[in-house]
Amino acid sequence: MQETIVAIATPTGEGAIGIVRLSGRDCIALVDDFFPARTLVQSEARKAWFGIITDEEGRAIDEVVVTLYRAPASYTGEDSVEISCHGSPFILSRVVQLCLDAGARMAAPGEFSQRAFLNGKLDLSQAEAVADLIASQSAAAHRIALHQLRGGVSNEIKDLRQKLIDFASLIELELDFGEEDVEFADRNQLRDLVEKIRARITQLTTSFRLGNAIKLGITTVIAGRPNAGKSTLLNALLNEERAIVSHIPGTTRDTIEETLNIGGVTFRLVDTAGIREASDTIEAIGVERAIERVRTSQLLVYVFDVVETNPETLASDLDRLYREDLQLIVVANKMDLNPYTKYEQYFGDDYAGKWAVDKEDFIPMVAKDRANLGYLQDRLLATATGGTAGLDQQQVVLSNARHYDALRRADEALVRVLDGLNVGISQDFVAMDIRQSLRELGEITGEITTDDLLGNIFSNFCIGK
Amino acid sequence: MQETIVAIATPTGEGAIGIVRLSGRDCIALVDDFFPARTLVQSEARKAWFGIITDEEGRAIDEVVVTLYRAPASYTGEDSVEISCHGSPFILSRVVQLCLDAGARMAAPGEFSQRAFLNGKLDLSQAEAVADLIASQSAAAHRIALHQLRGGVSNEIKDLRQKLIDFASLIELELDFGEEDVEFADRNQLRDLVEKIRARITQLTTSFRLGNAIKLGITTVIAGRPNAGKSTLLNALLNEERAIVSHIPGTTRDTIEETLNIGGVTFRLVDTAGIREASDTIEAIGVERAIERVRTSQLLVYVFDVVETNPETLASDLDRLYREDLQLIVVANKMDLNPYTKYEQYFGDDYAGKWAVDKEDFIPMVAKDRANLGYLQDRLLATATGGTAGLDQQQVVLSNARHYDALRRADEALVRVLDGLNVGISQDFVAMDIRQSLRELGEITGEITTDDLLGNIFSNFCIGK
Repeated sequence: MQETIVAIATPTGEGAIGIVRLSGRDCIALVDDFFPARTLVQSEARKAWFGIITDEEGRAIDEVVVTLYRAPASYTGEDSVEISCHGSPFILSRVVQLCLDAGARMAAPGEFSQRAFLNGKLDLSQAEAVADLIASQSAAAHRIALHQLRGGVSNEIKDLRQKLIDFASLIELELDFGEEDVEFADRNQLRDLVEKIRARITQLTTSFRLGNAIKLGITTVIAGRPNAGKSTLLNALLNEERAIVSHIPGTTRDTIEETLNIGGVTFRLVDTAGIREASDTIEAIGVERAIERVRTSQLLVYVFDVVETNPETLASDLDRLYREDLQLIVVANKMDLNPYTKYEQYFGDDYAGKWAVDKEDFIPMVAKDRANLGYLQDRLLATATGGTAGLDQQQVVLSNARHYDALRRADEALVRVLDGLNVGISQDFVAMDIRQSLRELGEITGEITTDDLLGNIFSNFCIGK
Repeated sequence: MQETIVAIATPTGEGAIGIVRLSGRDCIALVDDFFPARTLVQSEARKAWFGIITDEEGRAIDEVVVTLYRAPASYTGEDSVEISCHGSPFILSRVVQLCLDAGARMAAPGEFSQRAFLNGKLDLSQAEAVADLIASQSAAAHRIALHQLRGGVSNEIKDLRQKLIDFASLIELELDFGEEDVEFADRNQLRDLVEKIRARITQLTTSFRLGNAIKLGITTVIAGRPNAGKSTLLNALLNEERAIVSHIPGTTRDTIEETLNIGGVTFRLVDTAGIREASDTIEAIGVERAIERVRTSQLLVYVFDVVETNPETLASDLDRLYREDLQLIVVANKMDLNPYTKYEQYFGDDYAGKWAVDKEDFIPMVAKDRANLGYLQDRLLATATGGTAGLDQQQVVLSNARHYDALRRADEALVRVLDGLNVGISQDFVAMDIRQSLRELGEITGEITTDDLLGNIFSNFCIGK
C-alpha cells in the first residue's frame, strides 16, 4: 500500500505542460535524489518549486516545477509529488523511467483514486464519479458526474442506510429479548418506514434511465421505405439545434451519423437506406445494412408515407425490424397529403403485425414543414429516459449501472422484509433481509466492499488518475 | 501587451489532470471572481490552492487546484495563473469559456513564450528551444533542445558578438578621428580576430547538418534490383538496435517504413520493390513507386549483387535514380560469392554513368552475415551529418535553420570585412559590414528583432506554450 507509484497524469501527446505524478510514503525522498535545486524532504508542501530534473549521471532532463503534498492533505491521502514538465512525450517518459529506476513502480489504472478511497479521502461512488467526470462530454453528463463526486449520491444512500439502521436496531433489540417474544417496534410503523425507503429507491432507480441515457447517449436509427421522408425528418431534427450537431464519418461511406442533444440526452442519429424488396444484389446489401443498423440500436424511428404505405406494408416492415428491447416511435409523414389518417387505420383491431406502438408514439407529421416536430422531440426524450422530463437542477440522478444494480438488490431484500412483516415471520428472518439490504447499499459508497469489486471498478480508470 | 490571455496548456484528450493557463496584469483578479474558496488577489504566490471553480450562476464546474505566479517571478514575467482541473476536454473548455466571458482573450500560438521573450525571461533562441524541446523524440534531439533552452547557443552567439563589438569599437574610434587618418587597431590583429570568429561560425554552421539530421531525421531509401539483398540489408541494419525499431504503416500496403537510430540520428528507412524492366503494368507501377520514393528522400542506399550486376546496369540504375542533392551510398553485396570485386571495376576509368560515388561510399558487404555492417553504419552517420561523428556531450550543436541562415549571413559580412581590410578600404565600409554582421548575430538571440520575425517564430508554437 505504501509503495511509491508513478504515472503520467496528463493526456498523451505534445503540449505546453505535462505532469508526472507520484504517491506513496517515500515519493518525496525519491524525487529529491534527482532534483538538485533544493532539499525537498525539508521543503514546504503545496508550494511550487522550480528546478532541474537530472538523470543518474547528473545530466539535465528538463526544467520543471515540483509541487509536494504531505499526507493526509493530498488527493490520495499519502505523500504525493507532481512534477510539471514541458509537455514532451519523450521528456515525460524519461522522468517516469527515472522514477522507476529509483524504486517506484508504474501505477495501475485508477490506483491514485483507489488509494484516495482506501485512505478515506473519497467514498467509492465519489471515486467512480472522477472517471465519469473526465469522460463527460455534455453539460448534463458533467453535472451528474460532478454532483456524484461532491457526494450527492453518497448522501442519498447514507440517508437511506441510516433510516434502515434505525429500523434494524429495533428488530435486533427484539432479537435480544427473543425468548420473551416482545415487540418493541410497531409493525405498522415499520411497514410505513420500509415503504418510504422503497419509494425513494424507486425514484433513484427510475432516474437511472435518464442518467444512463445522458451518460452514454441513445443510438437512434431512422428507417423506412424509400421517399418516406427520412432525410427530411433528419434535417428537421438537426436544424433545431444546429450548433451542437457534429459529423462523424462512418466506417463505410454510406452511413453518416449525426448527434442531437434533447434535454441533455445525446441522440446518435443514424440515417439508413430506404427499405424495400431489393431489385438487385447491391441494393439488397444496402437494405441488409439498414436492418443491421436497427439491430444494434436502442431506438427506432420508423417513418412512413401516409399516402403510399398501407397498413399491411407497415406491419410487415415493423415485424422485420423490431425486437423486444427496441424502443419504437412511428412517424406518419406527409399528413398534408392525407390529413384524415388516424392511428386506428394502422394499429386498429385488424392490425396483423406482431409489433405495435402506443397511440402516443404514433406521431402524425409534415416533416418538410417541421409540423409536430416539438412533439416528436418530447417523445424521443420521454422514450429515452423512461418518462422523466430531462435533468432537473436539484435532483439526484443515478448514472452508474453498479449503483443501479445494488439498489435493485437492496429493494428486493426490502420486499422480502415487507412480505415477512405481513405474514408475521420471526424477527430472525426479517433481520437477515434488512442486513442484506444494508450490505447492498453499503457497497455503493464502499462502506462494504471486496477486492474483486474494487479491482473491477478501478481497472476501468485511466492510468494516472 | 498586458491583456489577459488564456489557453489549455496540456495536450488534448482525456487524462487525470488538465491545465488552463492565464497570463496578464489582471488575470489573478479575473480568476478570483469564479473561485469562491479564497481571495486569490490577497493569497500567496507559488502555492497550490484547492477549491471549486463556479460559473456565473454559482454552479460548480470542477474541483481544482489553482497556483498563482506574480510578476516577474513567472514563466511569462507577468502575473500568471495555472488552474489544474480534472483532465476532461469538456471541463477545460468550460473553464476557458468562463475566462473568455470574464474578459480574457484566447492566447495566440506561442504567446506565453513570446511574452516571456518580450519581458526578458528568455532570449529568442531559448524561446525557440521550448518548441523544439516539446517536439523532441530522441535523446539526442532532446539534449540539443535542452542545451539551447539553457542558453548554450545564446552564450556562444553572445561571446562571438562581444568579440565583434570589441573589434567594432576600435574601428568606430578610428572613424571619430576620421579626418586625421589614424589607425588605432593593428590591421593584422584585426584580421586574426575576424578569422577566429569566422572559424567558430564555421564550426557552428557545420554542426547544423548534424543538428538538423538529429532534429528532423533522414529519409533513407534502400533500392536496387530484385534479389540484390535489400531486405536482408534492412534486417541486418534493424537487428542492430531492435529496441528502438518501430513499424509505421505506410499509406499503401506495400511500403513499410522502419526507423533506425545511429549516433542519435534517426534514419527513416524505406524498403522498395526491386527495380527492373517491368514485364507487366502492375510491376511497372511498383517500380515507378520505388523511383518516386527515391525522389522524395535525402539518402539512397543502392544495393547490388556483385555476381549478377554488371557495371553498365549499375551505371544505368544510378543515372535513373540519382539527382544532385541526393546523398548516395553503394553497397556491393554478396562479396562472398565474388570476393575479388573492386571499386575500380564499377567506377573505374571506363565508368559510363553520369553519377558516381567516392571510394569510401562504395561498401563491400555480405549482408546475410552482417559482414562490414559497422562500416556501413559509420558511413550512414557520416553522410547524414556531413562528417561529424555524432553528438558530443559538450559540443554546441545548431539545429535551427533560422540560426544557421543568420550565421551564414553574418559570415558573408565578415568575408567582406576581410576583403576590405586586405585592399585597405576606408573604415566606413569596414564598419558597415561589421555592423551588418552584428545585426545578424543579434537576430539569433533576439537582441535585434522585427515584428515579422517574431510573428514567424511564435506562430509555429502550439497554443498554450
